[in-house]
Amino acid sequence: MLETQEIRAGRLKTKEFIKEKVAEISQIVGGGVAINALSGGVDSSVVTMLGHMALKDRLKTYFIDNGIMREGEPRQITSVFKKLGVNVEIIDAQDEFFNALKGIIDPEEKREAVTQTFYKKVFGSLVKESKAKYLLQGTILTDIDETVAGIKRQHNVFEQLGIDPQEAFGYKIIEPLAQLRKDGVRKVAEALGLPSSIYNRMPFPGPALSARVIGEATRERIALVRKATSILEEELVSVKAFQYMAILHNDRVTGMRDNKREFGQQVEIRCWDSIDARQARPTQLPFATLEKLASRIVREVPGIVSVTYNITTKPPSTMEAI
Amino acid sequence: MLETQEIRAGRLKTKEFIKEKVAEISQIVGGGVAINALSGGVDSSVVTMLGHMALKDRLKTYFIDNGIMREGEPRQITSVFKKLGVNVEIIDAQDEFFNALKGIIDPEEKREAVTQTFYKKVFGSLVKESKAKYLLQGTILTDIDETVAGIKRQHNVFEQLGIDPQEAFGYKIIEPLAQLRKDGVRKVAEALGLPSSIYNRMPFPGPALSARVIGEATRERIALVRKATSILEEELVSVKAFQYMAILHNDRVTGMRDNKREFGQQVEIRCWDSIDARQARPTQLPFATLEKLASRIVREVPGIVSVTYNITTKPPSTMEAI
Repeated sequence: MLETQEIRAGRLKTKEFIKEKVAEISQIVGGGVAINALSGGVDSSVVTMLGHMALKDRLKTYFIDNGIMREGEPRQITSVFKKLGVNVEIIDAQDEFFNALKGIIDPEEKREAVTQTFYKKVFGSLVKESKAKYLLQGTILTDIDETVAGIKRQHNVFEQLGIDPQEAFGYKIIEPLAQLRKDGVRKVAEALGLPSSIYNRMPFPGPALSARVIGEATRERIALVRKATSILEEELVSVKAFQYMAILHNDRVTGMRDNKREFGQQVEIRCWDSIDARQARPTQLPFATLEKLASRIVREVPGIVSVTYNITTKPPSTMEAI
Repeated sequence: MLETQEIRAGRLKTKEFIKEKVAEISQIVGGGVAINALSGGVDSSVVTMLGHMALKDRLKTYFIDNGIMREGEPRQITSVFKKLGVNVEIIDAQDEFFNALKGIIDPEEKREAVTQTFYKKVFGSLVKESKAKYLLQGTILTDIDETVAGIKRQHNVFEQLGIDPQEAFGYKIIEPLAQLRKDGVRKVAEALGLPSSIYNRMPFPGPALSARVIGEATRERIALVRKATSILEEELVSVKAFQYMAILHNDRVTGMRDNKREFGQQVEIRCWDSIDARQARPTQLPFATLEKLASRIVREVPGIVSVTYNITTKPPSTMEAI
């Protein structure tokens, strides 16, 4: 479909790349209608901009509010695009996601529930309803590399969307970033005028805050980890780290409040120094920062009586807890 | 029975106190036989020494190996006493304790299981078999203060031991430390020639390592937290802290070993600065120490992929996790 030969970030001419991809999208879609989902990550943000430049109102962009985003995230991201003249529709799908996550404790099943709900249930329905036959996707070369050889990707995408393989002949997937890696995508994002909050956005997992909760990701527990995440992001805003996160544990620990025993919950903080995410070390945050973080979290997040800081390297740890 | 008026550590004359208590024990026991359990804590250690000085071989001292002690602890403690001429018999009761702990997750039930097994099952049987009618106990004034008013303590002890209240009239409890607080007991211990490893021993909970395991305290999980505790005690030997501990969590976290995903376990380290245990702050250990600790634990303790350091103050945290 589109070119798949790698373009290294160092050799990437962003203006030419943008011009070329916009032209390609225009040519493929012709007078048709395209659809895409914006998550706020740099890949889907760049695709949204390229699609918008090529198709204007013939691109329908949806932001799926799955209920497991960070504080205010749906509004923040759609307002970034509004400023750039791109209209993004927020779809409230919180109930669908929390229903799918009900009772799930295993991290892999949790990921699967979020992915399935996104593709089959929510975005799949939007694709069918929209009658758009062109799907813009933010697939990058690293994603393609990571796909196990022998499995046809295009076929899989439709399967994920709950679209019948026979029916699928009518659809076309467009992947304008398939020649780039993350560093290249960031350069294009900057050249497109996207703000640094988008192109320097800290990595955030697909299953969002449900990956930051050990055990069941209920609405209540997501609210707790969301609050802890807000505090963390406020306190570490000036810290240069690869990634930081707050994780709500499932284990109960003893605490004391008003001289009474409280069997409470624990939040773990991770803050990583890393170049490429393959290896990482805990950031040597000052103790004053760690104590401030802990004292705000136990004061502001209901039921939390204990806060820890992860001191392991990757490997054998991973960046995320689950 | 014995005096119960408080003797403050500052006014305590250790030589006189020892002489007086040895005489009291001799007088009460007369030509009879006494029994006591040594845990290695400062209270039971001092009682063992006083009882030994008063009764020599007519005191039977038992060290109950409950299987949830630290590495080598039974041998270490009994050898301290051997050097001082006191013969202590180790009773291997590991099976009894692990059977009692089977399937128990709730921390209070865990404590109860350890206490019940100690008194009713193990020490209770020893008392009955020994035919000793005198029980030496390391009760201190703080223990008495903490006992809810209105409950007769003596009655409770026999109930705990599984000794019938009617039968109990034949028994006598001797509590030589009932007028002292911890600081006073430490002074007496030093005066008795006990080593600093005894009188400056870090606080260690009654339910021992079972209190350092969140979730079920199986033989296997106790072995893991025992190993982590050894590493911690080696690495922090020169650190001046009120108390430090390693805690094995029940929550599973993702790790990587040999490029393969490993759903592993987490160990939490706590190290407290405190004057009187009522309030505490995490010790500001150097990051190099924290990283060394983490790297040794993930390398030397099977299945551990992640290590955290607690950064909360007490309150709202407590010193122990459960």
